[in-house]
Amino acid sequence: MAHIPLPEGLPGILGPLAFRPETAGPLTERAQVLLRGPSPLAPGEREIIAAYVSKLNGCRFCHGSHAGAARALLKGKEAVVDAAFKDPAAAPISEKLRALLVIAGAVQKDGRGVTAEMAAAAKRAGADDHELHDTVLIAAAFCMYNRYVDGLATAVPPDAAYAAMGERLAAEGYRAP
Amino acid sequence: MAHIPLPEGLPGILGPLAFRPETAGPLTERAQVLLRGPSPLAPGEREIIAAYVSKLNGCRFCHGSHAGAARALLKGKEAVVDAAFKDPAAAPISEKLRALLVIAGAVQKDGRGVTAEMAAAAKRAGADDHELHDTVLIAAAFCMYNRYVDGLATAVPPDAAYAAMGERLAAEGYRAP
Repeated sequence: MAHIPLPEGLPGILGPLAFRPETAGPLTERAQVLLRGPSPLAPGEREIIAAYVSKLNGCRFCHGSHAGAARALLKGKEAVVDAAFKDPAAAPISEKLRALLVIAGAVQKDGRGVTAEMAAAAKRAGADDHELHDTVLIAAAFCMYNRYVDGLATAVPPDAAYAAMGERLAAEGYRAP
Repeated sequence: MAHIPLPEGLPGILGPLAFRPETAGPLTERAQVLLRGPSPLAPGEREIIAAYVSKLNGCRFCHGSHAGAARALLKGKEAVVDAAFKDPAAAPISEKLRALLVIAGAVQKDGRGVTAEMAAAAKRAGADDHELHDTVLIAAAFCMYNRYVDGLATAVPPDAAYAAMGERLAAEGYRAP
């Protein structure tokens, strides 16, 4: 049961967004800017970073929905997407995305853990400064979203629910509820 | 040195906000809504939560600037503000704020660590559902801001700089740079 009385039938972050419309607008607008706005990183790559950090934070709702979005955005490459979450070091992804996932994983633990070596490795693999910036910001933002969702003990839908959720997020993006 | 070329003379979060104006707007708007917008928690209480979480995350810039803002908003009670960061369990603060800081501390570690007992204790101490919600969201948001600031290795001003910064944040709030 959630720690505050959230509206029925709205899983995960949708409950607190509806509970507190005053704070929902900027939260949703940010997700749209971060995950779909102008960026050298493709929306599918950004969803992989979001889902990976959410997995590290143990947030089932955020991992499920953003993994679903990544799969929907990268149709035909679902196995690659799944491998990226499971073991980015071994997954058949670009060296650039691999290096950015190392940075995202460091941010998830503690921002101070991102080293000059990690940044240099990402640049050697082809990442530019905006990609590095956006990776840090997306990873940091999901450390917020994950805690917002789990800190209020929101409703967690069953695994079967995330494919449709991901398709919708891929098609429509993020909008205020 | 920062991991990306940030503009000179802009410490902490101001560097990346100026580097990437596309994402700066929603980030700053959120800080204003969370810390100054309508809430049953006073702005000074919200700045204490923000500064406490930033301290737990070891983010010197965010702790310094938000502790400065809390001190400026609670003039004459600076010693109480400092005690709240140092040891909330023993500080001469309201039982409500003490219980909310317990929740904020749990969110900082892992959203899943907030227990029904913590929420019940806060409610017994007089916190309502909005105060509980806002505490979780502010604590979660600073897990983002802290990681954004430190994950890019932004410039950290000396301790002497934060009093003036806090006065300005207390007087003017948060606005896009």
